[in-house]
Amino acid sequence: MAVSPPTSVSAAALHEFDSLLGSERVISSEEGLVEWRDPFQHSNWDEYTASAVVMPETVEEIQEIVRIASRRGVPLWTLGQGRNNGYGGPAPRVKGSVIVSLRNMNRVLEMNEELGYAVVEPGVRWFDLYEAIKTGGHRLMLSIADVGWGSVIGNTLDHGITYMPYGVDMGMQCGMEVVLASGEVMRTGMGAMPGNRAWHVYKRGLGPTPDQLFMQSNFGIVTKMGVWLMPYPEVYMPIWVRVWKDDHLGPVVDTLRRLMLEDTIRMVPQVMNTLLYGSVFTRREQWWQGAGPMPDETIDHMGRELDIGRWLLRAALYGDEAVVDYRFAKVQREFGRIPGCDVWGSKCAPDEIPALENPAERVQGGVPSLDLNAMTAWYGGEEGGHIGFSPIAPLTGHDASALRDLLRGMIEDAGLDYIAALLPINARSFAHITLVIFDTKNEPQARAAYDVAKRLVRDAAKLGYGEYRAHLDFMDLAQEQYSFGGHAYRRFCETIKDALDPAGILSPGKQGIWPKSMRAGGRHST
Amino acid sequence: MAVSPPTSVSAAALHEFDSLLGSERVISSEEGLVEWRDPFQHSNWDEYTASAVVMPETVEEIQEIVRIASRRGVPLWTLGQGRNNGYGGPAPRVKGSVIVSLRNMNRVLEMNEELGYAVVEPGVRWFDLYEAIKTGGHRLMLSIADVGWGSVIGNTLDHGITYMPYGVDMGMQCGMEVVLASGEVMRTGMGAMPGNRAWHVYKRGLGPTPDQLFMQSNFGIVTKMGVWLMPYPEVYMPIWVRVWKDDHLGPVVDTLRRLMLEDTIRMVPQVMNTLLYGSVFTRREQWWQGAGPMPDETIDHMGRELDIGRWLLRAALYGDEAVVDYRFAKVQREFGRIPGCDVWGSKCAPDEIPALENPAERVQGGVPSLDLNAMTAWYGGEEGGHIGFSPIAPLTGHDASALRDLLRGMIEDAGLDYIAALLPINARSFAHITLVIFDTKNEPQARAAYDVAKRLVRDAAKLGYGEYRAHLDFMDLAQEQYSFGGHAYRRFCETIKDALDPAGILSPGKQGIWPKSMRAGGRHST
Repeated sequence: MAVSPPTSVSAAALHEFDSLLGSERVISSEEGLVEWRDPFQHSNWDEYTASAVVMPETVEEIQEIVRIASRRGVPLWTLGQGRNNGYGGPAPRVKGSVIVSLRNMNRVLEMNEELGYAVVEPGVRWFDLYEAIKTGGHRLMLSIADVGWGSVIGNTLDHGITYMPYGVDMGMQCGMEVVLASGEVMRTGMGAMPGNRAWHVYKRGLGPTPDQLFMQSNFGIVTKMGVWLMPYPEVYMPIWVRVWKDDHLGPVVDTLRRLMLEDTIRMVPQVMNTLLYGSVFTRREQWWQGAGPMPDETIDHMGRELDIGRWLLRAALYGDEAVVDYRFAKVQREFGRIPGCDVWGSKCAPDEIPALENPAERVQGGVPSLDLNAMTAWYGGEEGGHIGFSPIAPLTGHDASALRDLLRGMIEDAGLDYIAALLPINARSFAHITLVIFDTKNEPQARAAYDVAKRLVRDAAKLGYGEYRAHLDFMDLAQEQYSFGGHAYRRFCETIKDALDPAGILSPGKQGIWPKSMRAGGRHST
Repeated sequence: MAVSPPTSVSAAALHEFDSLLGSERVISSEEGLVEWRDPFQHSNWDEYTASAVVMPETVEEIQEIVRIASRRGVPLWTLGQGRNNGYGGPAPRVKGSVIVSLRNMNRVLEMNEELGYAVVEPGVRWFDLYEAIKTGGHRLMLSIADVGWGSVIGNTLDHGITYMPYGVDMGMQCGMEVVLASGEVMRTGMGAMPGNRAWHVYKRGLGPTPDQLFMQSNFGIVTKMGVWLMPYPEVYMPIWVRVWKDDHLGPVVDTLRRLMLEDTIRMVPQVMNTLLYGSVFTRREQWWQGAGPMPDETIDHMGRELDIGRWLLRAALYGDEAVVDYRFAKVQREFGRIPGCDVWGSKCAPDEIPALENPAERVQGGVPSLDLNAMTAWYGGEEGGHIGFSPIAPLTGHDASALRDLLRGMIEDAGLDYIAALLPINARSFAHITLVIFDTKNEPQARAAYDVAKRLVRDAAKLGYGEYRAHLDFMDLAQEQYSFGGHAYRRFCETIKDALDPAGILSPGKQGIWPKSMRAGGRHST
């Protein structure tokens, strides 16, 4: 816990925010703040609650908010849309922080079809940018996240995963504008030169490149960002690979790695287990009403009934039809070596993607919706929640099986179901997204979910697997595992934090990085 | 110029370096220091001269060197091999600096064929890593620079360009170990977790990603780095595209962009003018003995005689034979729309690349040599030098032509030849590499070359083009152009510099970033 965190913003600071923005853009009533809590947090818990929300509409207003916060010592917590579900939603790490919501800054500032990029503000959602592309008649595709309501910038800054070719290594960001804690506005890369023509086409500048320093960080507030868009391919072909045995996960992963390394598949696939894919369109009670985790026989039964197997790979090919045909035949041949494995897919033109029935096929084709958000209702009711536990591992069958065994064992020991997807960020590594799903109205179940997620952080680290992104409730614990050189990395980040933000106002505690004023004895205690 | 820079290291500091390393690994004699000067600097000039070179062999020795330098206030200048030719070679920015040469740290520490990566020390050259791959019998290819003697790490840290698919966006680095000015050792990304299995396969960690902060920078000394290696494709096919008219540059660039955006060509090509490619294997006097720059008719003549045209594109395809065949046909068809354009190429197996006659075809196939180093002898003798002037621009025919016109005009006004290649770093941008070639023994010619290069920095910036990498002699001037927000970017870098390196010992002045002690009135004067 932070050392003496403020639990409420002062009336004087609130007054200054009111004067700057007008009272309709400053929310501080109890009922107004409800929607800014973690939607998956049990309603009795209040550790991660804000004391106000401010909603600027211009860069100048953000500069002024930062200056007020510095003067008054108000911790801020910035978000684009705040759809950080599974990792804390819009809630701040430090109780009583003032949320800087950028939802109202939602303009698409530039669209360049010739060079394939857009420039967006932080409130622009996947939906908005998709619509702007369509409205403009541009033959360009946007690599999107599973759920369309998120902010393009917010997702990018949290290392969010998207699925089209430009999602590989999260590679589609190019050029930023950032408000620093000092109130200054900085542009990165070529944008540091006034009038430079290459700001959003070349990823570096002259000197060190800071863009990734503003991701998963509390070093600045990003106010503009370039996003690369892919020209329409001749055809789009979503493909599916299904295996029926749990222990075929290893061969699926090894085959996938080879196909990705040789570039036959170039995008971000998902290898989903039965429960993950099944939870999108069914509820647990349809399959199992017993106590404790769903047994193997029931999972097998569910896989057969839904025709989704034990592991189901979703992927896609993009390109000229001749190349896609060649590659699909190769994908069929390579996965065909796994006994009982089925491979299928069907081609369409980019214009036909919005009409595809399967939401996963639309997502991989860049068409956003909310359809894939249904899975957290697994345990019934409208109050389903989940915690994301997502370690990174090398893309090998050995590592995939080792992580599955560890995670499944621990989650089932806690009485919960193992609901997981492996997402290869590139040809060499994957994030093992584990959705620890629970009913938020069931306090013991919610408590068990949080507890097991924390044990997972420690136990995965012992095997050499670290989280790619941490939930508010265990950011410190997750960062604690990155201890090489007596926590040299955290010390490095905190040295930069103290230099850039001496008042410690920007998102203190984000990913375990604390300003000096909130570190106990030079170190924040966890 | 730096404020009161030391011009010579103190005897006391030298004594400490001697005690640490032994005198055979500390060079301070005048004759010993000759090879550590910029090889292209006129021999009467001595602004960028070191006062000693230290040659550590372990990380611990580097830590100790940094501690000595901090205590004694000795500016260090770090290099892998120091083959930074065209940008200052091994010479330091601040006269009297102690060069930390990492040439003796030349071990390949790990080679992973399954996941396609190696881990190297900073003294490992392209030659060394290539040999290690061959010796181990690995069917892996390394994306290399044009000249094989450079350090893999050194080149990467200076934003050096390589040509195979992993050269796109300079994307092949993954995971670092760094000695900071404090003497601490930090590991980046997943390496910050002891024993993590994904250090060299996933490019980020938990929290902000600092890797690119150590490129073109003076924030640390990189001691280990992961490098991605590409599995052997079924076939390798170098391809060539030739046009005969200068004004066909625009259509070549526009066609190339479309082919790169749609992924038909995925690597880093070069679009070379007649003089650049011709200078590899002929000398100027064979073509033109007149005063001033070579006239258009002579360039046309040279292009015809050598069969290289006015602009020659070198590129390559990698992959399964069926896909390569399809793509080559498409490349032929698309460039075929340009009148008089020729497209050719020939396939081979990866094992056959070392036997290819053309050094450019070997370089694009990852086989290093020194063959492409010949071009700087253009003006005759063994004393040819060049200055690299390399602005970045969007990959459009419009921008390519505008930059060509600006650069050719100014360079020819200075009495020199316009020798250039456009290198698309990705599908959206290119570096316009301009080799301002001169005879280092000819002081007026050398002076003219330096002078015009500086004018180019300013005049290109006015049109919106900034340098991707700057020569020692105009690093400050180049950084000066990146002035958005009253130099917010430089101030940001210098804030970090002062926090990480309060004594200001690591490579002061690199890319125009100075420690507080060397900034006049809070700002270094240029």
